[in-house]
Amino acid sequence: MLPFARVTIIGLGLIGSSVARAVRAKMPTVRLMAYDADSAVRERAREIDLCDDIADAAGTAVIDADLVLLCVPVGAMGQAAASIAADLPPEAIVSDTGSAKASIAAAIRQALPHATVVPGHPVAGTEHSGPDAGFASLFEGRWCILTPDGDTDPAAVMRVSTFWEKLGAQTEIMDARHHDLVLAVTSHVPHLIAYSIVGTASDLEEVTQSEVIKFSAGGFRDFTRIAASDPTMWRDVFLQNREAVLEILQRLTEDVTMLQRAIRWGDGDQLFDLFTRTRAIRRSIIEQGQDSAEPDFGRSHGG
Amino acid sequence: MLPFARVTIIGLGLIGSSVARAVRAKMPTVRLMAYDADSAVRERAREIDLCDDIADAAGTAVIDADLVLLCVPVGAMGQAAASIAADLPPEAIVSDTGSAKASIAAAIRQALPHATVVPGHPVAGTEHSGPDAGFASLFEGRWCILTPDGDTDPAAVMRVSTFWEKLGAQTEIMDARHHDLVLAVTSHVPHLIAYSIVGTASDLEEVTQSEVIKFSAGGFRDFTRIAASDPTMWRDVFLQNREAVLEILQRLTEDVTMLQRAIRWGDGDQLFDLFTRTRAIRRSIIEQGQDSAEPDFGRSHGG
Repeated sequence: MLPFARVTIIGLGLIGSSVARAVRAKMPTVRLMAYDADSAVRERAREIDLCDDIADAAGTAVIDADLVLLCVPVGAMGQAAASIAADLPPEAIVSDTGSAKASIAAAIRQALPHATVVPGHPVAGTEHSGPDAGFASLFEGRWCILTPDGDTDPAAVMRVSTFWEKLGAQTEIMDARHHDLVLAVTSHVPHLIAYSIVGTASDLEEVTQSEVIKFSAGGFRDFTRIAASDPTMWRDVFLQNREAVLEILQRLTEDVTMLQRAIRWGDGDQLFDLFTRTRAIRRSIIEQGQDSAEPDFGRSHGG
Repeated sequence: MLPFARVTIIGLGLIGSSVARAVRAKMPTVRLMAYDADSAVRERAREIDLCDDIADAAGTAVIDADLVLLCVPVGAMGQAAASIAADLPPEAIVSDTGSAKASIAAAIRQALPHATVVPGHPVAGTEHSGPDAGFASLFEGRWCILTPDGDTDPAAVMRVSTFWEKLGAQTEIMDARHHDLVLAVTSHVPHLIAYSIVGTASDLEEVTQSEVIKFSAGGFRDFTRIAASDPTMWRDVFLQNREAVLEILQRLTEDVTMLQRAIRWGDGDQLFDLFTRTRAIRRSIIEQGQDSAEPDFGRSHGG
């Protein structure tokens, strides 16, 4: 049995358009509506027939929905929730896909005080953005974290969980603050460091940008992929998950300083110990199907 | 015409064994000799028929070589050079594949004061190690940097350059100290940060290692690939390229601190500006063929 019959997606970027494609692929009988604040995106979504209907107002899109999924940058979640408040059916469940949860859940609940809200976050993505970047298999084998509060109807949580499982994801329930700390470690700080290192490299006087590009295969190019992610989305994530990001960043800075000191004083054993320990984590990630076992992510070599 | 007729490889890890396979593939008439300090590696190299002959002593391997290529961790280069000193033919050219150049070239020249030395560095690799990890196309489309000093015979530099071009690489001549700075930016500091962030994540008390692994698809897993690279190789790189690594690390720390402050004070514009700028670098890297244009490095999704 399908958890929802009429799904509305607000926001048709990489995530929203991937959800649309996945719903079409896995639950073809679901009536799929959508809205995007950008008229060019709405037009493109109609061209590529992403949904059954694309509304020109958020309210129109949700009018008979039983699930409304907010897939906008986390800084725009409160506003997106407010834009559907007048038209949201009382029995509809509202969820979202934001990368930060505590502040976003609060913003959605404030805008929709009477709605059943089940905040969510599918941990998946690529560095590309927009309605053409999505694809139906994006969530397969990935995790979707749900962060309902203690008052949320368990049946609603179960339905949202089933929805994500139908799209191929595994689900986990987590406290919103804990989610924010876990994601600060596994996603937000890695993005911040990637953006930063690419910025540092492009600002050097002694090394030209052309050299940075030519010789990027020594490791740097991996960071440029992450640092090509959507600027609006990521600006919002850092502002909305400020506390957890700053806490993890402080930890990282201490650890980098320790390595800096080890290099300065020629303490090879300390470096070797860390470099050996980190290999084991990679192995576990591959064993648990969270990354490709092929060398170099399976990048093609040659040709 | 082939630049060399009798090539000897000292060290059969990822790089040495890739050179061996590439020579076999691209210059099959070359007589290919090798030596590795580890007897298990020598045995494995014989099993998989990596070269025409695997010697049990470094001196034996170089006895009639016209190119000797040292492919050992940079901390072992001086010793590897010393081990062939007594048997190296006077007209042979000695080169290497080390990731740091100034200190390594000095160590090789000190061990082989009368030899023609053309230090080199193919900017290519994967996170895997050992004689089974190599493959013939590793250098195709990648750059190999040569750092001869002003006294080196230009004909010798040309021959080494042609050798790498035959293996599919493009070559560039560079001052050794400049190479070390460029690689600190494009390879060494990215590796250090990746090792560090994986270490930080695995040391947290509030977030379990199991959570870090499960939710790694949000960005963290990219860092674990780099942080799975060979510990001995990378310990040596940081110790041998200390000055340049510390200089770039200092720059990066300043830039991260600025971002930290922008997050703390809610300066979204500063974050947005940087995140927009870094996208352009990614585009250039793809345009110049130094990375895959496919989203997510072309990782397979689903299944």
